[in-house]
Amino acid sequence: MEGEAGARFLGELEEQPAVLARLAGEGQAVVREVAGAAPRVRHVRLVAHGSSDNAASYGTYAFPLLANLTAFRESISLLTYYGAAPDLGDSIVVAISQSGRTPDVVDYVGAARGRAALTVAVTNDPSSPLAEAAEAIVPLGAGSENAVAATKTYTASLAALALLAAAFGGREAQTAEGIARCASLAAETIPGLREQAGGAAALLQGTRQMVVIGRGIEFATAREIALKLSETCRLLAEPLTSTDLAHGPVAGLDVSSPVWVVASHDACLPAALEAAARARRAGAPIIASGAAAMEVAGAGIRLSVPPGPQAILAPLLSVLPGQLFAWALARAKGLDPDAPVGLSKVTDVP
Amino acid sequence: MEGEAGARFLGELEEQPAVLARLAGEGQAVVREVAGAAPRVRHVRLVAHGSSDNAASYGTYAFPLLANLTAFRESISLLTYYGAAPDLGDSIVVAISQSGRTPDVVDYVGAARGRAALTVAVTNDPSSPLAEAAEAIVPLGAGSENAVAATKTYTASLAALALLAAAFGGREAQTAEGIARCASLAAETIPGLREQAGGAAALLQGTRQMVVIGRGIEFATAREIALKLSETCRLLAEPLTSTDLAHGPVAGLDVSSPVWVVASHDACLPAALEAAARARRAGAPIIASGAAAMEVAGAGIRLSVPPGPQAILAPLLSVLPGQLFAWALARAKGLDPDAPVGLSKVTDVP
Repeated sequence: MEGEAGARFLGELEEQPAVLARLAGEGQAVVREVAGAAPRVRHVRLVAHGSSDNAASYGTYAFPLLANLTAFRESISLLTYYGAAPDLGDSIVVAISQSGRTPDVVDYVGAARGRAALTVAVTNDPSSPLAEAAEAIVPLGAGSENAVAATKTYTASLAALALLAAAFGGREAQTAEGIARCASLAAETIPGLREQAGGAAALLQGTRQMVVIGRGIEFATAREIALKLSETCRLLAEPLTSTDLAHGPVAGLDVSSPVWVVASHDACLPAALEAAARARRAGAPIIASGAAAMEVAGAGIRLSVPPGPQAILAPLLSVLPGQLFAWALARAKGLDPDAPVGLSKVTDVP
Repeated sequence: MEGEAGARFLGELEEQPAVLARLAGEGQAVVREVAGAAPRVRHVRLVAHGSSDNAASYGTYAFPLLANLTAFRESISLLTYYGAAPDLGDSIVVAISQSGRTPDVVDYVGAARGRAALTVAVTNDPSSPLAEAAEAIVPLGAGSENAVAATKTYTASLAALALLAAAFGGREAQTAEGIARCASLAAETIPGLREQAGGAAALLQGTRQMVVIGRGIEFATAREIALKLSETCRLLAEPLTSTDLAHGPVAGLDVSSPVWVVASHDACLPAALEAAARARRAGAPIIASGAAAMEVAGAGIRLSVPPGPQAILAPLLSVLPGQLFAWALARAKGLDPDAPVGLSKVTDVP
C-alpha cells in the first residue's frame, strides 16, 4: 500500500463524511448514558494535546452553548508536575486522545478519578490505557488512522464533543441530525475543494510562515489548520484570534506572511472580517475559507464550504479547506504529507 | 522628551524594580480586603487581551498554587458575542487591563457583575471605565506607561495577581516579601543583561520568525517574550509549550527559525530541556533564558537571571531578558521600539 505521497492523509481525510455519519447514528445512546451518570456537573475540564487539544478548544464553546456548562482546557502540568490538588467534585474531566496513549493525559485522568470527578475518555481506541483509566468512554469509531497528521479523528472528536455537550443540554437528537447533515455536505464538498486547494497551493510554494485567524467557535479551526500546515508543510503557522492579531503580531506581517482567515456565519464574523482588513493593510496576502469566505474583502484565494445547519457545527466543515490545502501544499513543496520530519503518531514527551 | 529610539520602552523597563517594590509594600492591604469580600469563591475567571492576557496565563497557575482555586482564561466572546449565560455565583472575575479601556473586557465585567460574580479590576488607571465597572480594584500603581509595548505594567500585573491569589490562600505577607526580593534582584540584574542582550541581538538581525518555549508557570513568560518580539521587531514569534512544539511545529523548524527556551528551576524544567534538545535536532539555533539557562544544552546564547525566592515568582525575573532582547533587536534592525507599525496603546477591535 505505498501509493503516492500523501495517499494515506488524503484517504483518511476523505473518510470523514462516513465517520461523521456513523457517529451521528451510534453516538447518541453513548452520550446519553454519560450525561445521565453525572447529573450535578457544573464544570468541564478538557485535557488533551495536539489536534485533540484543538478539539478541546471547540469544547470550550460546545459545552457552554449547548448545555450552559463552563468548560476550560485544563493545565495538565498543574496536577502532574506541580502537585496541585483541586476540588473536582462538581467537574467532569473529558480527556481526548485518538490513540488513548498520550502519557500525561492518561496520568491526569488517573489522578482526577481519585478526586471525585467523573472521567470520560474520547478516543479512537476503546482498549487503550486512556479508555481503561477513565470511567466512561465515547468511542470515535473512526477506524485506524495511520497518517501522522490527524484528520478524521479530529472531526470525529469535534462531533463527539458536540454530542456529549448536547446530551447534557438534552438536545442530542437534534445535534446528531445536524452532524449527519454536515456529513452529507462534506461528502459533496470535498472533491471540488480538493481541486481548488491544489491551485491555491501552487501559488504559495515559497511560504515559510503563515498566520491563521479565527475567533470564537472557529478558533479551534484556526488552531487545527495551523497545526496541519506546521506538521506537513515545513513552515511555521501561528493560530491567533482576531483580537490577538491586533494586539501585536500584525506589526510583524508583510508580503511574506500570508494570513488565512476562517470566516463562518456567526456572531464573530465581524471580528474575523476586521482582522482580515487589518492584515491586508499590513501588506499580507489573504486566504479566506469557511462558509463566509466570499465576505472577506481583498482575499486572493477563497476556499468556501456550505453553511452548516447550526453555527456550533460549522467547524466540522470549515476545517476541510485547511486539511486539503495542507495536503496540496506539502506535495507542491515536494514533501510527503504522510511522513513529516521529526514527528510520530503518538507523541511521548515529559 | 524625544531621545533615541526605544528610550521610552527602556525607561519603563528599568522602572520595574521600583514598581514591584511599591506594590509589595502597598498591595497587601488591598488584596486582603478583596479576598475578604469573596469568602466562598471557588473559581477565578481571568479576562484580558494582549500582555494582560499573558499575565492571565500566569494567573491560571498563581491561583491554583497559592490558594488551591481553579482559574482559567475566560472566552470573552462567549458572553459578549454568543450570549452565553453561565452561572457565576461561585466565581470571581479578574479583569486585567493596564489602561482599563479595552472595550470588550469592560463589557464582560459589566455583564458578569449582573450575574452574581465578584468582579475585580487589575488596572493601572483607577479612574478608568474598567475600574468603574468592577466592584473592587487592585491598582498597579506603575505610573504612566507610554511605550506601546507594555513592560512595567506586565510585571506589575503578575505581582498583583500573585498577591491577590496569595490573599485567598492566607499568605500575602510571605508573597509580598518574595516580590520585594525579586525587585532587588531585578535592579541588580538589568544593567548586565542589557549589555548581553545587545550582543545577542547583533547576531540575530536577519530573523523573521522565532518560536518561544515555556511550560507551566513559565508559559506566561514565553507568551510575553513572543509578544514583545512581535510588537517591536517586525518578525513573527510564536509562543508554544514544550508539548505543543513536539506535537507539530518542530517539523517546521530549521536554521532560519531560532528557538527561545525559558528555563527556570521548577518542576517543568525537564520538559523545557527536552524541548530545547528536540529543537536543536531540527537544526534550530537555541537561545536560553531564565535562572536555569545554563542547563540548556547546546544554546548559542544564554541570558541568565538569578533564581527567585519562590518558583511561583520566577516569572517576575525571567521576562527581563526577553524585554531587553526585544528592545535591542528592534534597534539592531533600525526600528524604533517605542513606535511599532500598526499598533496603538489601547487596542479597539470588535
